[in-house]
Amino acid sequence: MAEKSVYFFGDGRADGRADMKNLLGGKGANLAEMTNLGLPVPPGFTISTEVCAHYYREEEQYPAGLPDEVSKALHEMEELMEMRFGDAENPLLVSVRSGARASMPGMMDTVLNLGLNDSTVEGLALRTGNARFAWDSYRRFLQMYGSVVLGMKPTGKDEVDPFERMIEEKKETRGLVLDTEFTTMDLQDLVRLFKREIRRRTGVDFPVDPHEQLWGAIGAVFGSWMNPRAEEYRRLNDIPASWGTAVNVQAMVFGNMGSDSGSGVAFTRNAATGENVLYGEYLGNAQGEDVVSGARTPAAIAELARERPDLYGHLDRAREILEKHYRDMLDIEFTIQQGKFYLLQCRVGKRTAFAAIRIAVDMVDEGLITPDEALLRVEPDQLNQLLRPVFDLEEKAAAIEQGRLLAKGLNAGPGAAVGRVVFNAPDAEEWKSRGERVILTRIETSPEDIKGMNAAEGILTARGGTTSHAALVARQMGKVCVAGCSALAIDYSQRHMRVNGRVIREGDFLSLDGTTGEVIQGPIAARDSEVIQVLLHQLSDEKEAQVYRQYRKLMEWADRVRRLAIRANADQADQAAAAIAFGAEGIGLCRTEHMFFGEGEIGPMREMILASTPEMRERALSKLLPLQREDFEHIFEVMEGRPVTIRTLDPPLHEFLPHEASAQRELAAEMGVSFEAVKAKVDSFHEFNPMIGFRGCRLGVVYPEITRMQAQAIFEAAANVIGRGKKAVPEVMIPLVGNVKELDDQAKIVRQVARQVMDSRKLEIEYQVGTMIEVPRGALTADEIARSADFFSFGTNDLTQTTLALSRDDADRFLMPYLQRDIYPRDPFQSLDIAGVGELMKIAVVKGRATRPEIKIGICGEHGGDPSSIEFCHQLEQDYVSCSPYRVPIARLAAAQAAIKLSQPTPETSQKVRATARG
Amino acid sequence: MAEKSVYFFGDGRADGRADMKNLLGGKGANLAEMTNLGLPVPPGFTISTEVCAHYYREEEQYPAGLPDEVSKALHEMEELMEMRFGDAENPLLVSVRSGARASMPGMMDTVLNLGLNDSTVEGLALRTGNARFAWDSYRRFLQMYGSVVLGMKPTGKDEVDPFERMIEEKKETRGLVLDTEFTTMDLQDLVRLFKREIRRRTGVDFPVDPHEQLWGAIGAVFGSWMNPRAEEYRRLNDIPASWGTAVNVQAMVFGNMGSDSGSGVAFTRNAATGENVLYGEYLGNAQGEDVVSGARTPAAIAELARERPDLYGHLDRAREILEKHYRDMLDIEFTIQQGKFYLLQCRVGKRTAFAAIRIAVDMVDEGLITPDEALLRVEPDQLNQLLRPVFDLEEKAAAIEQGRLLAKGLNAGPGAAVGRVVFNAPDAEEWKSRGERVILTRIETSPEDIKGMNAAEGILTARGGTTSHAALVARQMGKVCVAGCSALAIDYSQRHMRVNGRVIREGDFLSLDGTTGEVIQGPIAARDSEVIQVLLHQLSDEKEAQVYRQYRKLMEWADRVRRLAIRANADQADQAAAAIAFGAEGIGLCRTEHMFFGEGEIGPMREMILASTPEMRERALSKLLPLQREDFEHIFEVMEGRPVTIRTLDPPLHEFLPHEASAQRELAAEMGVSFEAVKAKVDSFHEFNPMIGFRGCRLGVVYPEITRMQAQAIFEAAANVIGRGKKAVPEVMIPLVGNVKELDDQAKIVRQVARQVMDSRKLEIEYQVGTMIEVPRGALTADEIARSADFFSFGTNDLTQTTLALSRDDADRFLMPYLQRDIYPRDPFQSLDIAGVGELMKIAVVKGRATRPEIKIGICGEHGGDPSSIEFCHQLEQDYVSCSPYRVPIARLAAAQAAIKLSQPTPETSQKVRATARG
Repeated sequence: MAEKSVYFFGDGRADGRADMKNLLGGKGANLAEMTNLGLPVPPGFTISTEVCAHYYREEEQYPAGLPDEVSKALHEMEELMEMRFGDAENPLLVSVRSGARASMPGMMDTVLNLGLNDSTVEGLALRTGNARFAWDSYRRFLQMYGSVVLGMKPTGKDEVDPFERMIEEKKETRGLVLDTEFTTMDLQDLVRLFKREIRRRTGVDFPVDPHEQLWGAIGAVFGSWMNPRAEEYRRLNDIPASWGTAVNVQAMVFGNMGSDSGSGVAFTRNAATGENVLYGEYLGNAQGEDVVSGARTPAAIAELARERPDLYGHLDRAREILEKHYRDMLDIEFTIQQGKFYLLQCRVGKRTAFAAIRIAVDMVDEGLITPDEALLRVEPDQLNQLLRPVFDLEEKAAAIEQGRLLAKGLNAGPGAAVGRVVFNAPDAEEWKSRGERVILTRIETSPEDIKGMNAAEGILTARGGTTSHAALVARQMGKVCVAGCSALAIDYSQRHMRVNGRVIREGDFLSLDGTTGEVIQGPIAARDSEVIQVLLHQLSDEKEAQVYRQYRKLMEWADRVRRLAIRANADQADQAAAAIAFGAEGIGLCRTEHMFFGEGEIGPMREMILASTPEMRERALSKLLPLQREDFEHIFEVMEGRPVTIRTLDPPLHEFLPHEASAQRELAAEMGVSFEAVKAKVDSFHEFNPMIGFRGCRLGVVYPEITRMQAQAIFEAAANVIGRGKKAVPEVMIPLVGNVKELDDQAKIVRQVARQVMDSRKLEIEYQVGTMIEVPRGALTADEIARSADFFSFGTNDLTQTTLALSRDDADRFLMPYLQRDIYPRDPFQSLDIAGVGELMKIAVVKGRATRPEIKIGICGEHGGDPSSIEFCHQLEQDYVSCSPYRVPIARLAAAQAAIKLSQPTPETSQKVRATARG
Repeated sequence: MAEKSVYFFGDGRADGRADMKNLLGGKGANLAEMTNLGLPVPPGFTISTEVCAHYYREEEQYPAGLPDEVSKALHEMEELMEMRFGDAENPLLVSVRSGARASMPGMMDTVLNLGLNDSTVEGLALRTGNARFAWDSYRRFLQMYGSVVLGMKPTGKDEVDPFERMIEEKKETRGLVLDTEFTTMDLQDLVRLFKREIRRRTGVDFPVDPHEQLWGAIGAVFGSWMNPRAEEYRRLNDIPASWGTAVNVQAMVFGNMGSDSGSGVAFTRNAATGENVLYGEYLGNAQGEDVVSGARTPAAIAELARERPDLYGHLDRAREILEKHYRDMLDIEFTIQQGKFYLLQCRVGKRTAFAAIRIAVDMVDEGLITPDEALLRVEPDQLNQLLRPVFDLEEKAAAIEQGRLLAKGLNAGPGAAVGRVVFNAPDAEEWKSRGERVILTRIETSPEDIKGMNAAEGILTARGGTTSHAALVARQMGKVCVAGCSALAIDYSQRHMRVNGRVIREGDFLSLDGTTGEVIQGPIAARDSEVIQVLLHQLSDEKEAQVYRQYRKLMEWADRVRRLAIRANADQADQAAAAIAFGAEGIGLCRTEHMFFGEGEIGPMREMILASTPEMRERALSKLLPLQREDFEHIFEVMEGRPVTIRTLDPPLHEFLPHEASAQRELAAEMGVSFEAVKAKVDSFHEFNPMIGFRGCRLGVVYPEITRMQAQAIFEAAANVIGRGKKAVPEVMIPLVGNVKELDDQAKIVRQVARQVMDSRKLEIEYQVGTMIEVPRGALTADEIARSADFFSFGTNDLTQTTLALSRDDADRFLMPYLQRDIYPRDPFQSLDIAGVGELMKIAVVKGRATRPEIKIGICGEHGGDPSSIEFCHQLEQDYVSCSPYRVPIARLAAAQAAIKLSQPTPETSQKVRATARG
């Protein structure tokens, strides 16, 4: 235990420092730091967290020396403030607040205006010249003290707060509506009533002695460390109970002591745009709570500069000192008491993505921070805001005002989309071909809907989560998507849906905000974001594009420090082009099955599946070959020699088959067989658990002709491109491998075909054959598998399903209760389950490198675009991550952050000052 | 490389020994050992496996000294046999055979009668006094030599063996049917034709020089080591190519040289019953191949004893020497040439389960082997033969003769069953109640069929593998089951099925042989096995039950040495009683869901599932409580204080719901809601991948009232039993745990209920709460989970499904090709996948014991009854295995074998002699 328990701060001198957060809590350390900076902080002292630990260890006793230390510190406060605690004429009032090592907002108790009693209230009235304010403060203090210290909280049988009940009764008696209408006399009356109620309910009088008040409040704050809310919060945030809280006792200052007083809140830079100007609000002759209560309208900070340059000068100087010291944009609270400027609080300010990037880039230009620090200042997920189409905010607010908000679903694909409702994929295509913008609205989507989804501006589903088929495909396509909007009652046959009592018909306009999940009736103006306009549409006036220039600078820094390569998951040439615009260095996952849903392809694909002899199958495959080859050729062309990882056929075959009788009849007619035969065959493909059924490499092992055709398409496409003097680097990836013999079987076919193509074309193709690691057994036997694999790519979607025995399509029944009850800390399909799935990945990396040290290792599951998962991939020393094209910038930034964080031996140390400020 | 390449054996002196198998191959080492034992083995020599290695290393060259060594050994043979190689009057003939370290039956080449040519054939005719035999031997030699050494095998365009073609032509010309009808002249003619054909096709003459013949044959045998058949066999059996084969050259002896000659094969004890008497067949004046060819009827060995006691004496002495030396029952081949007795072969004899047990037990009594050795002599799976009902073998053979064999399916549940066909479970129950024996015949079974399965003698399904629902449940119930019999075309509506052109109607008799998978039309007499009669039906004349007494003795020895405890999977009191009779020490898995399909239970169960409020659910559960409690009470009573591991509700809820409209209508009426409401609710329970969906502990987490009811039923049942002065030890097992928080959530409920029951009954119940480890994440985080678990039980069925991403119900599409192509060495649902699933089990054991060293660990998947999996569990130092009741004896024996094998530092050493004999 430290020698002392009480740490004083005031008048430019503090016992504590910012790096003493563990001992003084975040708030205490921060107040000490500001004091040491010479900033005008009302004096006070912090009782350390060690006292809290002692308090609980020793049956709620304080260390022996504490009363003396508190007395001494209080005396120093009196000296500095030239006021006396309990003095009837010039009373020192104090606040008593908790302050733990980690921020626990609102979890513990606070008491303000402590020191008031029947005599000091008169002194306060005199000093402020405002008797009503003094009595209102007294009334509030009694209420707070009664509740926090004396435990007069609402009980089971008496569920209204007893003080609030008295206030309500008083208003009723007096025929008033608002608290602000109370007169001084009303407030004096309430003080009497409050004191009587306290005596009645607790059996003791309200303590008039300020010292007794102080010790009561200190005990209450320590006690609140163990209240159920705080315990729950600590449990959820992994904060050990042993940390304890500190107690901060600080002199109260008042901004309502005349025209040379006032209060305000400000950001040191514009929190919306990042512009380097003070940004905030000020209210003359008012307390801090008045600024935020809305009872009076505060003025913009800029007005203060014009009207009271002297007061503004204080603020501006504080801003300069703080930004220079904390090296970040700060959110500050200040009070001016009779011309004297006080800082009450400072913390790192929240900001939009636009502001985050501008501030980070500007601060590097200003020499405040390094590029590495700038990279750490932007949350990777925030970049989404820069890439998404945006609604005109005013127009959207107006629409909601008009009651046009229909429902809210899951914000599965961010951005803004406007279009007319259609209820099936073919309609979406047809309407689009007529020049209509459409919102494809489905109960849920399936692979058959791909083309319709591609044609739509946005996708809206009634079922499915943020990792449902709709959401996954939408994000990969960069489409706006609101999923799982359960308020929709869709009736396909009537071509309408009911939503909260309203009927939306086919052709009606909807606006989807995929960033918020809002579904709005009617159109709202939307446009591409500036960054997208530059990146994808080669906007001509690039010089005007300030946001883009900042984005580009940040990305350049990121690319310089990151160690992970970034690839994209792209199945088509247009997706590949977008991926490159976003900075992808290759394709990490090209799913060939999506190609089979194309116009000319689904027919032969179905013939192939329903073939009853190898010859029939070969015939169907020979129709697919040129189509696949053409697709691959386009992709290789676009990728200009960057590696393209192509996965052989993966999904269960029934996904390609028509399940409705009419479509089956059509297919039967095309194939020249009976409807019954087609139906029976389709039914025979039914599986109980298709996710772990006949799919992945199992298809290619049983039907080697499929793999042969795909390999032929790949290598012939590459040969065509190379024949034209360009480059093409295919990497063939075998899915669902759990046993090295599966890979051997498939790799042999691929290598044979590659050799044949290269020999017949008389050229060499640089290629690799590798495997997905997406089955636990694949990870567990990675040493064997690595002997036959040029690369591993973690398919963490399926690896999560199998490792957790968790069907993604069925998890909605229990995922929400699991998250709510903290059984899963996060949705494991969004953020990698490090302890389980991550453990298998670690095993796979270690075992794989043991037998093939040079093996290339990547990830191509959805987690490849999730920042915390990317950090884990970096720790595993993987070679690359692959994600949907629109997440490539996020992955670039996240990879850079991982590299920076992990190159710092203790990231806390260098980030110490800022971290404290955040607390 | 050893100094010498050639190892001589003959006249009681051999260069080799039984333990030189690696150098001499199994056959060579064995011939040497018999020679050293003083047994009369025709002399010969073995060219070592090192020569084979040299041959392949040095481009098919032999070591320099080899010809001299071979000459020397050949000379010794001539001396001993008093014959000369190539001598026209008294020619020595030899056999040339391969012989690798491991037995590779039929994979490599053999040449007999080597040394014959146009002059020596006359000497042989003279010596045997049988010109026809001499010329037939010559004809055979030419044929063998031409094929093996000169490569005259059938080719693609000429698919008949060239020699067989000439034989057929000859028969045609002569109007003969059988080879045996050829005269000496015919054979002489064939020899001429063969030699001409050899010249025509190979361009060289057949070599008349016996030394040239010998070197040709030696080269051919070495060459056959690398033939494709042998390579394939080695690949399948993990035999390295580097081992090589030895070549054995041995003097030919002839049993057809008059009335004092003969040949025979014999087992040293009765291979069917195990009785300690010579058992086999003898044919006077005949070669070995005549004994097995069936052209003449051999006499039983006993006749030889009567008729030729002098010859029998040779045999009996050999038997005594060999059994004493090899300490096992042996299978021997012998030839008597003109009164001289020769042993040509000895190896450990194959035997029935009955014989295996009797021989093992008798040999302990005779002081030949120890009880530990006896335990190793019985294959655990053989015990099945002792427990299964059996068909009268003659009656079955007659039925097949009559063409009554309908089809063959998978032998999923061994034994014999006879009954009348019914096509659904309710009919099975109803017919059974009328006293009929029935065979329940279904396309596939589901949990709804449980009661019908219980009522049936046997279960026959058209779909599903040996681990399908039907097979699993049948084995647990001890029912006969033939599964996946794809020849059945069942028509439920017509109540008949078509099988290979025949129609079988409801009520027709079928006989199922679950041991072979045969489905036979009409009844065949079947009866309980003797062991079952004693164990389950307390057969009164136990003294007469010899087989049972031997079984009991073996089991007593097994129980003494095994370290693993053996439990049974049993859901009902009758199964529990059977389990105890078979020696189970507790229940390792009591599945509560099977109870819910009971008469009074399925209704409330469905109400519970379809409840729309917690209150409705509680009401339904309160109806289930007394029924469950009663079930548990019966089980505790039967188990008499042995531990009973009860798993809380596990399967997806839709398994309990009716899926047919009529049943849904009925349920709607019962529940007083609309049909549409029931249908919609049932549909809403549909899952895409139910195996990894809403099941296991997820049910109890979302509906804690279910767990609460089950815990209450368990502890009240235990309290009732304890209240009657007996013991009850429940172990509550939470399924599908992947995260310790799931277990914590459920264990808390169980412990609370236990406390409440114990307090209100004023008694203490000894109980545990543990978990299944059946999800990879459960194994990977076993350290965390062990903190909250009193025990782990590996659910290897589901752990296999998830670790391999392999749906048991869907695997039939590719499991067969996978097994055929050796991608999976064995069906992973039958024999534990050690490299994958076993690796996770190892991780779980190590991590679990790290945080809770005393944790009890068992297995309750199907693998708990598989001997090789049990050995692995023993290696992991698990505490127990649990399997279906009828496999308990198998598990006891397998556990004993594991303990014995693993207590021997090198099991090979002490088993050396026998192992060699087996080769």
